Parts: sequence; structure tokens; C-alpha cells
Amino acid sequence: MKLLWIIGIGPGDPEQITLQAVAALGATDVVFAVDKADGADVSELAALRDELCRRHAAPGHRVVHIADPPRERRPADYAATVADWHGARADRYEAAFAGLGPDEVGAFLVLGDPGWYDSTIRIVEQVLARGTLDFDWRVVPGVTSVSALAAAHRTVLHGVGRPLLVTTGRRLTDGTADGFDDVAVLLDGGLACEDLPDGGEGLDIFWGANVGTPGETLVAGPLPEVLPRIAAVRAAVRAARGWVLDTYLLRRRR
Amino acid sequence: MKLLWIIGIGPGDPEQITLQAVAALGATDVVFAVDKADGADVSELAALRDELCRRHAAPGHRVVHIADPPRERRPADYAATVADWHGARADRYEAAFAGLGPDEVGAFLVLGDPGWYDSTIRIVEQVLARGTLDFDWRVVPGVTSVSALAAAHRTVLHGVGRPLLVTTGRRLTDGTADGFDDVAVLLDGGLACEDLPDGGEGLDIFWGANVGTPGETLVAGPLPEVLPRIAAVRAAVRAARGWVLDTYLLRRRR
Repeated sequence: MKLLWIIGIGPGDPEQITLQAVAALGATDVVFAVDKADGADVSELAALRDELCRRHAAPGHRVVHIADPPRERRPADYAATVADWHGARADRYEAAFAGLGPDEVGAFLVLGDPGWYDSTIRIVEQVLARGTLDFDWRVVPGVTSVSALAAAHRTVLHGVGRPLLVTTGRRLTDGTADGFDDVAVLLDGGLACEDLPDGGEGLDIFWGANVGTPGETLVAGPLPEVLPRIAAVRAAVRAARGWVLDTYLLRRRR
Repeated sequence: MKLLWIIGIGPGDPEQITLQAVAALGATDVVFAVDKADGADVSELAALRDELCRRHAAPGHRVVHIADPPRERRPADYAATVADWHGARADRYEAAFAGLGPDEVGAFLVLGDPGWYDSTIRIVEQVLARGTLDFDWRVVPGVTSVSALAAAHRTVLHGVGRPLLVTTGRRLTDGTADGFDDVAVLLDGGLACEDLPDGGEGLDIFWGANVGTPGETLVAGPLPEVLPRIAAVRAAVRAARGWVLDTYLLRRRR
């Protein structure tokens, strides 16, 4: 039977991939590479994928490119728009999987961990639910950018025995995070932490741009004090690397 | 200068360790092995540590055992008791680090990720704050048991763009989790999800015992329906393996 791997490759450092991921990649016939529709491909991340294939994939493996359908960036109805977009992706994934030979092994390389702020699992489930293709599939977990951020800052993610809220920039200021002392933030395209009540007084931030990649840049300190520096560093990383992806931890000072 | 690595080794599968962790272990002179005071060492986890050292540590490396101070298991004041216990551990860690030769490299192998429900970073910070020893230190992130659980169940950890609450069994029923659709639970010694309001009606559970280890056992389904099976499986794993450690995801059905 056809087999599909969804492989978490960690946050961006080719050394932060697991032995299990290396073994799965080494047994892969076809690597599926998803190319963004709007030309917004992050060349450093595409280069990471290519580098991992060069190091670990079996000789003779094929790379099959899947063009990502266009996506509305500022939709009125976020969930519905994402659902439509996932449906359009499922069409393209289904067509690509159909090209796998019998008993061939395909793989997606997912930045970070596939269970964590990534849509590949959902799209594969959609393709399977259509019932048109028959294949087995497995998931390889990866190191998340949040763990890599904490390691780079040499800090823990939460107080002793305390909860950790993981959320997105979009939801940071919608009240969800109220009452939490430790909040990890991903997918923040616009420094949502600038809009916290009281200017973030009493909070420390452990911030990272492009964690795990050559452009990784870290800033830590009391949020109101270091925000201007973060904004400047963020702009500098974007200028130097062509992209910037923030991951950060907010911690109420104890 | 002396160097100390705090190395996340993933949830228990020796294949779920990163290349970075393998390299750090390969450059280590002294592996610090913490032995529980109450003889409650989990032999499968000690065997994992030994196996990783056998596979990846430099020839001639030493293993230095640190006896963990005794710990009150059901303290009246959880935070204060943990703080005292960490202080007692810092004494022992400090004594052990003092035995590192100049320019030698020491390492702790931490199950999962060092930033995530582990005390090693805090204790090393305490030792450093005493100012009696001078050493550099670095942290290697690891795959968490929560990511490994999601991968084993081939599922995602949260709804599209939604937050994920990570918490402990102790805090699951204290109100913190109210209003969250996706909750990951660790450090639950007694199936706290049995005590949820309405018997957990409307929730699915993705549960795992001893995730990543040879005793890994998974159960998934509507919480009220599968709870009896989980309780039975949990007892069977404990009987067969001598220990059981639960990790689970609760998800409000959408």
C-alpha cells in the first residue's frame, strides 16, 4: 500500500531534526514540496528542505511540487476562509498523491511539529475522507519553535506546576490570555504584544525572530522597555533575510 | 571554561532524539544521572538514558550519579515545598558540578523538552546564582510528549488558529481550563479528567500511557465512553511496566 509520512523537521536548524525523521526521509520515494501561490516562498525555508533532502533522502528520490492555492490574507470570516482554502489544497494534494506508485512512500516536511499550527494533517484527513485514494499515513513529531525559543533563551516555559497558554498573535489581545502568567505566542505578523493592556507592564518577554534559522535573533527583558528594540530588530531581520517570523513567550514577573 | 549541556532527549523513543542532542552527547565528558531518593526510579527510563549513552556518548565518558533528595508527595503548600526541594537538589548538583575538570563538558539528559515541565534549568540557575562555580551552559530543545502523543494519534493539537492550553492534572479541574476547546494535560497521576463537570460530555480524549516507550498504549474517543477503558488500560500498563505516565489531549467536539 502507498504510505505517506508527515514529518516534523523542527523549527529550522537542520540539526534540530530527529533520528526518526532522518530515517523516514531516507525511506521516502517522493518528497512533496508545497510552493506558495503568491511567490511568498521563504527561500531560506525552501533551502532548508532542499538541504535536508540532500543530506538524508534516499538516492533517486523525486521532488514533486504542489502549487498552493491563493489565500485571502485579511478575511472577514477567518475560519470559513481557511476551510475553503484547505478544500482547494486538498484538491491539489489528492492529485499529487494519485501520482504515487503502488507501494511508494511519499513525505511532507513540516516546519516544527505537524500537530502544532500546521494544516498538513487536516488536509490529508480531507483527502482520505473523500474515499478516492487508499493509502496509509504516519506522523513524525518535531521540536516546536516554542521549545527552540526557550532553549535559545535558556529558560523554562512556565512557573512550577503552572499552565502554559499557547496562542496566536491574532488572539493575544481578545481576552483569552487574561489571567495567564505564561503565554507563548506564534503566528504573530504584527507584534500584537504592543497592544496589551497597560503597555505590558509587569510582563517580561522572551522574543525570537526566525528561531532556529541563520537569521535567529533574540531579545529578552521587561516588555515595555524592550519593545522598541524588538521592533527595530524585527525590521532589520526582515530586511536582511527577506522574511521574519516571531515566536515569543510572555511571563508575568513573579 | 566548564560547559554544561541540558539536553532534551524527547519523550522516550531513542529515535525521537535530535541530531543536535546526539552531537552534544557525543562531546560530553560526564553524564549526570539523577537517581530518585525513594527508589521510584523508572527502570525503563534509566535504561533509555543508558542506551542513549551507549549509542551516542564519547568513548571514555563518565556517568556521575546524583542522589535526588526526598520529596513530600502530597504537600500542603505545593509551591513552597517544591522550592525547598529544588534548593536541596541545587546543593547536590553544585557538589556534582564541582567535580567537573577545567574545560570538561557535563550533561543532563532530560526527558522531553527542558523548558517544559522539568526543573533542571531552574536548579542550574540556582547553582549559578550562588556564584561559587563558574561554568557556561546551553540547552538543547527536545520533542515533547504532547507532540509525540498527537503524532501517535495522527491528529492536530488545536482548532485552526485557536489557542492550546497546556496544564497539569492538578489544575485541570480548578477552572483554568474553562472555555478552552483544546487542552493538553501532563503530570496527571490520577486521571483528573474523571472529575470534569458533566462527566466530560461533549469532549473527545486522545490519551496515551508511557508515550514513546515500549509500553506506549493509546486510547481515543468520546471521554465519557472511553474513560472506563482508559482506567483499565492504565492499570494494565502499570502492572506490565512497573510505571505509568499519562499524557492526553481533551478536545471539545466541533
